[in-house]
Amino acid sequence: MSLQERDRKHIWHPLTQHQTAAAPIGIVKAKDALLWDEDGNEYVDGIASWYTAMYGHCNDYIISCASEQMKELDQVVFTGFTHKPAVELSEKLMRILPSNQQKIFFNDNGSTAVEAGIKMALQYHFNKGEKRDTLLAFEGGFHGDTFGAMSVSGLSVYNGPFKDFFLKVERIPVPTKDNLAELLIKLKQICAENKCAAFVYEPLVQGAAGMKFHDVGGLEEILKLCKQNNILCIADEVMTGFGKTGKYFASSYLEIQPDIICLSKALTAGMVAMSITSCTQPVFDAFLDDEIGKGFFHAHTYSANPIACATAIAGIELLTSEEIQKDISLIARAHRSFAKKIADHPKVDAVRSLGVIFALDLNVEMERYGSLRDQLFEFFMKQGVFLRPLGNTIYMIPPYVITDKQLEKIYISIEKSLSIF
Amino acid sequence: MSLQERDRKHIWHPLTQHQTAAAPIGIVKAKDALLWDEDGNEYVDGIASWYTAMYGHCNDYIISCASEQMKELDQVVFTGFTHKPAVELSEKLMRILPSNQQKIFFNDNGSTAVEAGIKMALQYHFNKGEKRDTLLAFEGGFHGDTFGAMSVSGLSVYNGPFKDFFLKVERIPVPTKDNLAELLIKLKQICAENKCAAFVYEPLVQGAAGMKFHDVGGLEEILKLCKQNNILCIADEVMTGFGKTGKYFASSYLEIQPDIICLSKALTAGMVAMSITSCTQPVFDAFLDDEIGKGFFHAHTYSANPIACATAIAGIELLTSEEIQKDISLIARAHRSFAKKIADHPKVDAVRSLGVIFALDLNVEMERYGSLRDQLFEFFMKQGVFLRPLGNTIYMIPPYVITDKQLEKIYISIEKSLSIF
Repeated sequence: MSLQERDRKHIWHPLTQHQTAAAPIGIVKAKDALLWDEDGNEYVDGIASWYTAMYGHCNDYIISCASEQMKELDQVVFTGFTHKPAVELSEKLMRILPSNQQKIFFNDNGSTAVEAGIKMALQYHFNKGEKRDTLLAFEGGFHGDTFGAMSVSGLSVYNGPFKDFFLKVERIPVPTKDNLAELLIKLKQICAENKCAAFVYEPLVQGAAGMKFHDVGGLEEILKLCKQNNILCIADEVMTGFGKTGKYFASSYLEIQPDIICLSKALTAGMVAMSITSCTQPVFDAFLDDEIGKGFFHAHTYSANPIACATAIAGIELLTSEEIQKDISLIARAHRSFAKKIADHPKVDAVRSLGVIFALDLNVEMERYGSLRDQLFEFFMKQGVFLRPLGNTIYMIPPYVITDKQLEKIYISIEKSLSIF
Repeated sequence: MSLQERDRKHIWHPLTQHQTAAAPIGIVKAKDALLWDEDGNEYVDGIASWYTAMYGHCNDYIISCASEQMKELDQVVFTGFTHKPAVELSEKLMRILPSNQQKIFFNDNGSTAVEAGIKMALQYHFNKGEKRDTLLAFEGGFHGDTFGAMSVSGLSVYNGPFKDFFLKVERIPVPTKDNLAELLIKLKQICAENKCAAFVYEPLVQGAAGMKFHDVGGLEEILKLCKQNNILCIADEVMTGFGKTGKYFASSYLEIQPDIICLSKALTAGMVAMSITSCTQPVFDAFLDDEIGKGFFHAHTYSANPIACATAIAGIELLTSEEIQKDISLIARAHRSFAKKIADHPKVDAVRSLGVIFALDLNVEMERYGSLRDQLFEFFMKQGVFLRPLGNTIYMIPPYVITDKQLEKIYISIEKSLSIF
């Protein structure tokens, strides 16, 4: 029996309406920027499997580091104990994170990194004797699927069954060149009328919203206002982190640095699940007290799993290498040329790129999970290219190690896709 | 510089008041039931690193399966795609899970397995046109640290900063031989006065509460009443799952089976983070519709990570082997003898064991994170035994592969510990 048939029996896939969805494709092998299915078809992984396998699938160096670690120390409780992979990873992160970040707290995925960030912010104020009950977030942001993370996600496509259970959140639009003055007035009003604890945001690029970019200067003004009101700034860099925007982190484009940063996805280089919530010294210090209850009583069993830490260390070594930095520059340049070439196509409404992120909006109306969108997806798969359009937005975030030829294949298939409507 | 010193600079540990906590011990190596620190000290891991490494640390068979998988397929998006490790794992789980379980949904840790379970239950009713807004849970239960999971945890030691943000939960005491009649009256009243969506419970053993056992027959009556009211029963088997109670799952001791089961910890045999929320066919079917929004729009990037699935498959192969089943029986028998031997000691208030779980309450008052408890912890570490007393409860859940001599060493150190107060 094929994987596809066996899958039907017992597997419930995420983000899938099983009554209407096409049967899932059985993937049997991956290497560098390529995936192979059980029928022998080859696909260029144009989104690095949700921006995780940025150094290529089944990367030999990362595998060797993970394998070594497995033989030495697989797992140990991270309360009362520490270990070399966690310590080394913290030191390596300090060299690339925005310079105000000082402490590393471990979690297992993007959602829980955001949950920990929100909890840190709420308890930060609580520990200082202030009860703040409101969170600030952008319209159209996405931060995860657990209750806290869902609450701050503006992109609540199908959250109807859960919305009565959300935390209190006030929303502002993303800044543009045109709306900033008005936006800041609204934000001041929100700050005056609510006790805002934290502002949770995807810096520069809203991923799930369709790789939407917003104005750097505008974001800077918003962060400034938050800092003035002692509202902790929580940058969700789960998607943008580790080089995707051309810098190590999107926050590195800004003068004003976040108090808390959420990391995952490429953190572990596409190997295993792990996430991190980093923060500044003042945030950490607010939890120090002779009273034990002022500490942060949040834990996950596999916190700082040594094998995951080993993959993350190897990933950072690759990220900071000359080769990968050169790869990122070359992809960024190729994206810019392609964007220029395709911008005036009659089917193209808008095109944008930053680092290895490229996105293009079609001037064709499409529902986020509609049948036209599915046609696009299938068209790309038939071309041997794995892309996941978000409604009418076609985007790519290729692995840094993609070859020129593979990248060209994605560009060509995107150009071809414009003529199918 | 020692790991201990380097750790201080940038690491924020879970469940730790960093102002008063002792410096963490740097662990450098693990094998089978043993851990070694950076000063060369050896410890018997009496709790299998929070009940994860049940087949022993750095198990050669599990390492070889994970290493093979790493070279073949590391990670791929699990929406629209499937792969052999996920399919095989689902088939293997079906053979050992309670027989009414039919579908497997992947997450990354216990907290998110519970979040997914709660969301499934809320949306199950919502999809059937009924809005149910209340969750049922036991007093003193523990289910995780994200907002949804925290809400159902009765054991909210230091949740002050977050309690205004919890979901609506009604709590009942755990069933004893004495309180059942009264408990059922209370439960009926709760059901009459609230729209209860689901009952979340740790079956038979409340782990974080201090390995507290409750009455099987009583739990059965509670589940029966829930089923009569169409309240979905969510068994949190994160701690109890995969053989700890002597059966594959604690739910296997009961006639009435849960609608949803949460699995993690030993699922991946102490290698990497992963969790699963399984459910019955009727739960899954409630999400099937031509309307896409009735699907379950919950996802984590590393869902069904192939490497994690490979470790889980290997773990189940070991669990169901004759050797491991024999190991479990032998430990259970040894625990019973030790319990009998020590029950009448003047310092022992109560003693209990089930499968490889052993717990003993001292008749000495201790705060959960107090200094007497810390003295106990340090006493055990000096004896070369890693145990983490929960207040005045000393407990152990040793790896199934522990040797007779190592097990004896734990028993002896527990006996010795009784004379330090």
